[in-house]
Amino acid sequence: MSVTAALGFEAAGVAVGLKSSGNKDVAVVVNRGPLKVGAAVFTSNRAKANPIIWSQQAIQDGVVEAVVLNSGGANCFTGSFGFQTTHQTAEKAAELLGVSAGDVIVCSTGLIGTGDEVFRAKVLDGVAQGIARLSSDGGVAASEAIMTTDSKAKRSTVTRGGWTIGGMAKGAGMLAPGLATMLVVITTDAVLDAAGADAALRSATRVSFDRLDSDGCMSTNDQVTLLASGASGITPAADAFAEALAEVCLDLASQLQGDAEGASHDITIAVTNAASEDDAVEVGRSVARNNLFKAAIFGNDPNWGRVLAAIGTTDAAFDPYDVDVWMNGVRVCTAGGPDRPREDVDLTPRATHLVIDLKVGDAAATILTNDLTHDYVHENSAYSS
Amino acid sequence: MSVTAALGFEAAGVAVGLKSSGNKDVAVVVNRGPLKVGAAVFTSNRAKANPIIWSQQAIQDGVVEAVVLNSGGANCFTGSFGFQTTHQTAEKAAELLGVSAGDVIVCSTGLIGTGDEVFRAKVLDGVAQGIARLSSDGGVAASEAIMTTDSKAKRSTVTRGGWTIGGMAKGAGMLAPGLATMLVVITTDAVLDAAGADAALRSATRVSFDRLDSDGCMSTNDQVTLLASGASGITPAADAFAEALAEVCLDLASQLQGDAEGASHDITIAVTNAASEDDAVEVGRSVARNNLFKAAIFGNDPNWGRVLAAIGTTDAAFDPYDVDVWMNGVRVCTAGGPDRPREDVDLTPRATHLVIDLKVGDAAATILTNDLTHDYVHENSAYSS
Repeated sequence: MSVTAALGFEAAGVAVGLKSSGNKDVAVVVNRGPLKVGAAVFTSNRAKANPIIWSQQAIQDGVVEAVVLNSGGANCFTGSFGFQTTHQTAEKAAELLGVSAGDVIVCSTGLIGTGDEVFRAKVLDGVAQGIARLSSDGGVAASEAIMTTDSKAKRSTVTRGGWTIGGMAKGAGMLAPGLATMLVVITTDAVLDAAGADAALRSATRVSFDRLDSDGCMSTNDQVTLLASGASGITPAADAFAEALAEVCLDLASQLQGDAEGASHDITIAVTNAASEDDAVEVGRSVARNNLFKAAIFGNDPNWGRVLAAIGTTDAAFDPYDVDVWMNGVRVCTAGGPDRPREDVDLTPRATHLVIDLKVGDAAATILTNDLTHDYVHENSAYSS
Repeated sequence: MSVTAALGFEAAGVAVGLKSSGNKDVAVVVNRGPLKVGAAVFTSNRAKANPIIWSQQAIQDGVVEAVVLNSGGANCFTGSFGFQTTHQTAEKAAELLGVSAGDVIVCSTGLIGTGDEVFRAKVLDGVAQGIARLSSDGGVAASEAIMTTDSKAKRSTVTRGGWTIGGMAKGAGMLAPGLATMLVVITTDAVLDAAGADAALRSATRVSFDRLDSDGCMSTNDQVTLLASGASGITPAADAFAEALAEVCLDLASQLQGDAEGASHDITIAVTNAASEDDAVEVGRSVARNNLFKAAIFGNDPNWGRVLAAIGTTDAAFDPYDVDVWMNGVRVCTAGGPDRPREDVDLTPRATHLVIDLKVGDAAATILTNDLTHDYVHENSAYSS
């Protein structure tokens, strides 16, 4: 499963001491072909980590031979030394694999500002060890090596008529769109060209990772990479591939939501009858980023007033006094006033469903978020110490 | 002090059972003249409470005779019944004072969705009791009657050559610009006309309450009202009045910051050398709304990476790799890389000073915010229960 579920891929995960826990911290994923097609999307944060700057160049030609990923240090804001570390990482992998460094994608995750000589030496050691241990069942080890504050590894696989898509993801904090904060590698043995891979990836991430907004904080290191080996020999219809890829992305996004730092509720915000999809996304996101609403859900309090206060800050088309709000199946607010009593709403399950009916059009969008808890504050006030 | 520091004003604060604690919950402020000049600014939230909808009309002619304020219920999203409650509140005060209802401003604060028959009866009772107890030293009682989760009343007074400005404010959560979440009444015995009062109030709130962003959550009930009696007989220079008014507003904003729900740090974010004041405000606000940064400050962790990750999400002009960040006097990041060691930064004091030097221009702005703490989550997960 994971990135080695599809034919044509090998992977490894090794421990080289980047994590003080001694757990695996460097992953390598290699495409053995016959095709070496790659596509990637990156964080829209202007403060980009060195691996992002590198990989944005490397992906330009649509050819990717391998992806090297490390946890235990973001290599972001580490100066030109840090960029050279990323460059050397790609060169080392390229040399050992007999490919071009420009076809090696690099991803890092961990604390911003981490990337000194010790970090560099360990990452390069990890590249060598990882490549020495590559195997066609290394997907699980690779998915474990990219974990940071994740409590479990995230993997997903979908198989259609003769071809497979498999992926791994990490991410538990700094989860916000453009992308969610995370590293993701997805592999497929379907036959794709670079343009098709790019289009399918952008289409799938737009309605999955980009709709996950756990804590409103956008990372500097986000990257989703898709590799296609063509080893199945089958060329799927573009629609069928895009749909299957979206399924894998949504499954991984849902796993990220379910493992978000300190969360006690997974909140699905469905915005319906909006004038446009953009409006629906804006409304859903404003609620997903409202700390008062998120704290109320933590307290099992169906405080719909905080929902309306949040959406009132948007520019979306709607009349604040003609909105319905449903929580876990109970309409608590209709037409700008109270409806069913708060006591009717059971917010004790982890899965929380909020529906906001704007009543102005027929567009819709769903945003995934989490509640704001004591554990979130605890984990994020102690992360770097 | 407070709203009765200036000549020509009377006030009262009474308890009528809107708060379960039995504390004061209705305040009345009356302008005895000779001038009856008023100006007000309101929340920019599109989801506006009934008192906001009423008061936005009442302020149109620049004449205000009285302000009635209640805590213990926001009268927001309470339907047409709720609007009638606000209307009746103004009419009752007008009848007892012998003035026009259209010259009575109404403000409410508390839980959204609260505003039934019992609420209406208590507020109307409060109007009668408050007007019966009006006095020229009622400012303290009035400031106590508008408290919700505030731990202390907020009052401020400035006296210049023969004229005085005094104000009261409430607000401890939902503090975000446009305006901060709060009710404020400011009185002066200076001679002002309606246009001058309006201009001075907009100028002062723009650089005070609008720069306070405690938790990113914008209220439905925010209102700042300025009343001028002219009782001093002195007409100050417009600049002098605006400066004194800004001093009162900043003092009250600072008191709101210092009493923000659950906060353990008051964070001053100074953005310097920006290309424009708007850029500086956008950068400061992006940091003020970053939960990861705010949680780090709670943990006394000088995590400057989270500062850069936050400002990277803005459209402001700057190079992320040419920014300096100072925390409590220590430059922790310069030119996109680590500078002095984290250990040099002492974040144990409540007052926390962050400086972000964008190095692209000569504009600046300061945003006030708070950290994200266990107590914030606790208070806001239990507020309505």
